[in-house]
Amino acid sequence: MRMYDIIDKKKLGEKLTNEEIAFFVKGYTDGSIPDYQASALLMAIAINGMDVRETTELTLLMAKSGEMLDLSVIKGVHVDKHSSGGVGDKTTLIIGPMVASLGIPVAKMSGRGLGHTGGTIDKLESIPGFNTSLSKETFFNNVNTLGLAVAGQTANLAPADKKLYALRDVTATVSSIPLIAASIMSKKLAAGADVIVLDVKTGSGAFMKTVDSAKELARRMVDIGNNAGRKTFAVITDMNDPLGIAVGNSLEVIEAINALKGKGDEKLMEVVYKLASYMVYGAGKASSPEEAREKLEETITSGKALETFAKFVKAQGGDDRYVYDTSFFELGKIKEDLLSDIDGYVSDIRADEVGIASLILGGGREKKDDVIDPGVGIIINKKTSDRVLKGEPLATLYANDASKLAEAKKRLRGAFTIGAEKVGAYKMIYDTVE
Amino acid sequence: MRMYDIIDKKKLGEKLTNEEIAFFVKGYTDGSIPDYQASALLMAIAINGMDVRETTELTLLMAKSGEMLDLSVIKGVHVDKHSSGGVGDKTTLIIGPMVASLGIPVAKMSGRGLGHTGGTIDKLESIPGFNTSLSKETFFNNVNTLGLAVAGQTANLAPADKKLYALRDVTATVSSIPLIAASIMSKKLAAGADVIVLDVKTGSGAFMKTVDSAKELARRMVDIGNNAGRKTFAVITDMNDPLGIAVGNSLEVIEAINALKGKGDEKLMEVVYKLASYMVYGAGKASSPEEAREKLEETITSGKALETFAKFVKAQGGDDRYVYDTSFFELGKIKEDLLSDIDGYVSDIRADEVGIASLILGGGREKKDDVIDPGVGIIINKKTSDRVLKGEPLATLYANDASKLAEAKKRLRGAFTIGAEKVGAYKMIYDTVE
Repeated sequence: MRMYDIIDKKKLGEKLTNEEIAFFVKGYTDGSIPDYQASALLMAIAINGMDVRETTELTLLMAKSGEMLDLSVIKGVHVDKHSSGGVGDKTTLIIGPMVASLGIPVAKMSGRGLGHTGGTIDKLESIPGFNTSLSKETFFNNVNTLGLAVAGQTANLAPADKKLYALRDVTATVSSIPLIAASIMSKKLAAGADVIVLDVKTGSGAFMKTVDSAKELARRMVDIGNNAGRKTFAVITDMNDPLGIAVGNSLEVIEAINALKGKGDEKLMEVVYKLASYMVYGAGKASSPEEAREKLEETITSGKALETFAKFVKAQGGDDRYVYDTSFFELGKIKEDLLSDIDGYVSDIRADEVGIASLILGGGREKKDDVIDPGVGIIINKKTSDRVLKGEPLATLYANDASKLAEAKKRLRGAFTIGAEKVGAYKMIYDTVE
Repeated sequence: MRMYDIIDKKKLGEKLTNEEIAFFVKGYTDGSIPDYQASALLMAIAINGMDVRETTELTLLMAKSGEMLDLSVIKGVHVDKHSSGGVGDKTTLIIGPMVASLGIPVAKMSGRGLGHTGGTIDKLESIPGFNTSLSKETFFNNVNTLGLAVAGQTANLAPADKKLYALRDVTATVSSIPLIAASIMSKKLAAGADVIVLDVKTGSGAFMKTVDSAKELARRMVDIGNNAGRKTFAVITDMNDPLGIAVGNSLEVIEAINALKGKGDEKLMEVVYKLASYMVYGAGKASSPEEAREKLEETITSGKALETFAKFVKAQGGDDRYVYDTSFFELGKIKEDLLSDIDGYVSDIRADEVGIASLILGGGREKKDDVIDPGVGIIINKKTSDRVLKGEPLATLYANDASKLAEAKKRLRGAFTIGAEKVGAYKMIYDTVE
């Protein structure tokens, strides 16, 4: 078998056999196939596509290129949620305790944030003492006793994906649905869950700009997951406006805690309930997503979810007083409003620009080794469709550096468009795929 | 400007600006753009194409990446012929002296053969003493006095093409019409001729398997040449059967000399006259290709073309007695016929397989540093459509090694298909493009 012939086949739009895909994944991972041949094949795939069988095979082989986690020491059905990354997305912090309260083990391996979207681990670390460097033993033990643990990803999951992603990133082959699907799902399959719920975001702040392309990606990932023997669901959610009201690490944790106290932003909770319902339903703890939702609402009204969160924080070394009284969080010392210049209606918010404004304040990382300032961030006061008067605050910025504040404020101003006519608010859930 | 964005544009099927193409050619030639990005772009071009403006720009920039030959020391209009390579193609040896006899300077930079097609220089070197390593001075002086000189290519013509070709060769991006056209034409433009006549071959022995694809390539190359200010013509010729009757170095020179003596194979001469007519017409030495042909026929009947050839051989150190008496050529010591097993008609000859049989005998190079045996080769006795009886020779092999002979003969047998029904002979000229 020759890599040349495999490239040539895909160039002509033909389907690759499982053996050919295996030859490529193995050869590229072990270095016997050079970057320049891999990038030619990736481009041919980006243009000519791959069918479900090809993509499933690619995904499985990428998953098997490294460690395949064995979660059998955790009791019960293992459910994993994956979000394609959004600005203000704190759903994991809310869903984790809710689902765990219903007896579904949540063993979350999470990443740190890079660019304009934040990472769950960064957010949790804004609680003093919170530690995500857990030994395997502690991690599994916490999941089995509390139902919930979050750790930084240390395992060598899907190294083939790591290498391929780095190459795609410099050869304009990132935006290919089969390649995105294989990249995400290879890591999910390697992470060992039995049930996978995918949050595929769409809109100006998401990688998938249109609902149709988000649906296509969701369909492909669900097919791969099901073909690989994992029960898989996807929900298409909105990422035009930022999710909820807070962007920034401490601010988002506070918003998540408020949500667990029953004071969550309505649109945020719509997404939370939809994703969590499929997790509970997928785990077999409810006969339908609707029944699952009822049970989930109870975890909030009963205070059980909040209690689980507090226990989880404490178990990982965090100060649980912050959970019961969020005024402990030290926010940015400079607080400044972004005021509207005119009367009108918010007609658009660029979520990605809001994320960048928060990053400028120090709330995110541009490069891998940047240090995060947990106290800075943005509260969005007006969302798309909202009436706003001249001089009213569109948003509030929390900063610790005046010059960064000025730059962030300028950027944030550009993220808002105010129009004369009222436009409709975005719906939060576009579709579900199973 | 970023290479990433250039790749992304072409991936989406958009047109590249001249500045973007320049950024790529310069960056790839100087090494600042890595192979893996270049191969991604080449694949995007191979699948999504390039229009005439883009291809012309790419070609010009590739041409200008190295030395641009200045032929102004040669008197008259400079005409160059390029053939896309065929088995048994000795047209340069015949056309050169004919055209030179009409006062058109032929300054030919030629390559050596590689794979199943032979090179003009290898063929000429089968005449003892013939030397193609000429100083620039001698080369130009010979062209100005005799009208004809052939030298090995020493100039650093189109180094960008050299580098890109090597990459295309390992990334399955060779068979792209804009890339083939740019590769060929960049070298032709750098070689400095005013008039370019292209012989684009089609058929089983050619790179372009169909007449349509050959026409498409011809059209593209002619457009590039004309856009670059060179008068360019292309002739689509047949490469199903080998061209003429001889394959092998000495054998082909003998066939060429016989043609100059007026005893050329009819089909070979059809191609010779068509190409030469456009050279003469393009150089302004005739008012139409038809008038050019009449003048060319005279160079044969008058013996002038043969005389020019003999002078040319002598001027480059060759023994000109070989021209007047071809029995001087020392052919392979073992001569053996390939006999037909059955009565029937030749329905197909695989020209590429005939070329490989000759290569096996020692008449060509598999690797760059292989040494050629000029005396070996093959004479084709029966062509497609010819009647053949059982026991009649289809071809005659000349060898110097019994085991190579056995292998070559086996290969050659597979190149012939004998059928019960008579099929039509191939036409030699499919079209001309100007």
